[in-house]
Amino acid sequence: MTFFSSRWVERPGHVAELPGGLPAGFRAAGVAAGIKPSGRPDVALLVSDAPDTVSAARFTASGTAAAPVLLTRERCDLNGLRAIAANAGCANAATGVRGYEDAARMQAAAALAVGVEPAQVALASTGAIRDYLPMEAIESGLAAAADALREDGDEDLAGAIRTTDAFEKQASLEVSLPSGTVRLSAQAKGAGMIQPHFATMFCFVQTDAALLPETADLLLGVCVKRSFDRISVDGQLSTNDIAVLMASGASGVRVEPESEDELRLGEALDALLRQLALLIVKDGEGARRIARVVVVGGHELHVEGAARAVANSPLVKAALHGGDPNWGRIVQSVGMALPGTAPLALDVAVEGVQVCTAGAGLPFDESALAAAVARDEVEYLIGLPGEGHETEVFFSDLSHDYVTINADYTT
Amino acid sequence: MTFFSSRWVERPGHVAELPGGLPAGFRAAGVAAGIKPSGRPDVALLVSDAPDTVSAARFTASGTAAAPVLLTRERCDLNGLRAIAANAGCANAATGVRGYEDAARMQAAAALAVGVEPAQVALASTGAIRDYLPMEAIESGLAAAADALREDGDEDLAGAIRTTDAFEKQASLEVSLPSGTVRLSAQAKGAGMIQPHFATMFCFVQTDAALLPETADLLLGVCVKRSFDRISVDGQLSTNDIAVLMASGASGVRVEPESEDELRLGEALDALLRQLALLIVKDGEGARRIARVVVVGGHELHVEGAARAVANSPLVKAALHGGDPNWGRIVQSVGMALPGTAPLALDVAVEGVQVCTAGAGLPFDESALAAAVARDEVEYLIGLPGEGHETEVFFSDLSHDYVTINADYTT
Repeated sequence: MTFFSSRWVERPGHVAELPGGLPAGFRAAGVAAGIKPSGRPDVALLVSDAPDTVSAARFTASGTAAAPVLLTRERCDLNGLRAIAANAGCANAATGVRGYEDAARMQAAAALAVGVEPAQVALASTGAIRDYLPMEAIESGLAAAADALREDGDEDLAGAIRTTDAFEKQASLEVSLPSGTVRLSAQAKGAGMIQPHFATMFCFVQTDAALLPETADLLLGVCVKRSFDRISVDGQLSTNDIAVLMASGASGVRVEPESEDELRLGEALDALLRQLALLIVKDGEGARRIARVVVVGGHELHVEGAARAVANSPLVKAALHGGDPNWGRIVQSVGMALPGTAPLALDVAVEGVQVCTAGAGLPFDESALAAAVARDEVEYLIGLPGEGHETEVFFSDLSHDYVTINADYTT
Repeated sequence: MTFFSSRWVERPGHVAELPGGLPAGFRAAGVAAGIKPSGRPDVALLVSDAPDTVSAARFTASGTAAAPVLLTRERCDLNGLRAIAANAGCANAATGVRGYEDAARMQAAAALAVGVEPAQVALASTGAIRDYLPMEAIESGLAAAADALREDGDEDLAGAIRTTDAFEKQASLEVSLPSGTVRLSAQAKGAGMIQPHFATMFCFVQTDAALLPETADLLLGVCVKRSFDRISVDGQLSTNDIAVLMASGASGVRVEPESEDELRLGEALDALLRQLALLIVKDGEGARRIARVVVVGGHELHVEGAARAVANSPLVKAALHGGDPNWGRIVQSVGMALPGTAPLALDVAVEGVQVCTAGAGLPFDESALAAAVARDEVEYLIGLPGEGHETEVFFSDLSHDYVTINADYTT
């Protein structure tokens, strides 16, 4: 098994990878409804057959959030979702009142197809921002997907939510808790428009553990903050992000608040979402390699601002792409994030090599460092004055392919 | 004459372009001192021979401001600068105490070479961030430049401060004021690391008008805010930015505070700096075309945040590069800048064509708009709810060449 592939995420000892499949109580499907011009699968359904399914959800913070986000946030019972209806090929964003009405029709069609209430169906749409949903394709696609629902439909689901993704991002895990063994699976998508607050990305997570609504919300909230909230491909918050955790309880294993079970399930979910987040960065549009920037210092806002500035600097990202150990651009981007603090006594280490101390460069073995930053994963450690705060951001490089992919997307 | 080449800057009627040359009282030079590996000119001097020269200056806000910026800000008489010593090929940034001492030596050498006090010499260095100044080359270069000072040395000065600039950015103007005719000239550099608060850029401005120090400061401050503060190539604030206005008074024309002379000179300076700023954007690393985003609305911070978000979005910039009228990305970037405001009733027009009203897309002639956004200059107009505030940002596109230029710069 190879899901836990990054040096920055460790598979917990009580977690084992499975070849695939959904936890007990779930079925999924993905079908081709003709929305994507390529003819590839573009409509997906995920359903929990357990009436007392518990759920939690997180959404984009965008001021131009898409209709499916607005509708799901406003009309759904977010603690009791039974289904997710998703499509690729059209984001249903910047579509105003008509877009909201289309989303309501999509929700109603999905609810009818799978036999639950509309308020139990979350929506997720992705694709170019501007177009209205092709409602006939959506409705016939949802009906076809409902007929195709299978317990091992997770792969079809993952395939149908892809847009510019180069590879699928999913995992099926077995988690050994003190009270018994549960399963945990997730399907994610995302490659561009990725930054703060988890951006154009979906992540659907399922478990057959039995959770209280507040436990589901706590676990999802904490783990999203440590995963999809800490990545950036291009610094661009999307209009359509959504992450949903659903717990069917079908395993019969109850995870009580503040129990050892909760802790262990949280560790598994944390590793799962962090690795999925890293896969999104790795699949960042045009990405050749990925980086982690860690910032430590005495002021929380400085630490956060510096990490974001480094992760989103096109100069740092272009140097990362070129395998160029250009630490001067790290200094520049941190200085931009902390105006008025000059002279700033900052330390910079690249792949464990100290290149700058107290704001001044140090001699180092340039060819050794050049070799180190030409590998798949590069780590920067930045020290700001003071101590007590630490953060990290994972990011991809800036390549010719990113420009190619994004210079001509709608037309 | 072709200096005023953008549709976004109008040459005032009382301003005429001259083929070149410095205003009365100034001399300049640029020489090759061996700092740039290419062997091209890299050390420059600008001197005012009038003992009562008046000046004003503005600097980068970076928390990692370079040694020449720190030293000039701390040790110079910024209202009475007589000279500027500049170099390209080394930014003297991230160089700590030794860098500051090197800057002091550079200042002393320049002062000696041109016969003024060290506190009358501003410093400006540009190039890669990390290296220490090659002091022998700097000192011999300054001596050679002092010998080469000429009244028509502005072209040599402009050439010696270039780094990745593809073309020179300078102008010589004749300005008709009610009290008499004065001259106004400027030399600028900058192509990358360009954003807020005028970034890796120098701009040296000279006039033979006689100004009070507070007039020089006011004019420079206002005009910088409307020019170098409103541009972005890559959203990256530099460590080394400096803008200096020097007034020799050699024309004998006195510009009194709040006079018609001041207004007219201000108009000329405003047009000069705005056109120079646009040239910097046009010369943005790898740029094919430039854009202006205008945002209007009821909240100053929203208007500013939205304009910056659009100007710095790699998705918007890549679409601009591709000649793709992808207004959905405008909506996305505005939404990112204004979290929590959804649904946001924003309007978007591209090149005068309304494409989005109250948050929803409109039908429009796609091929006509595609042709319009394939021209050299593209304009976006964004309306946010409310009224009373308006801002603009000029920016360049994101191209393959930007990546190429920046993926391998130090090595």
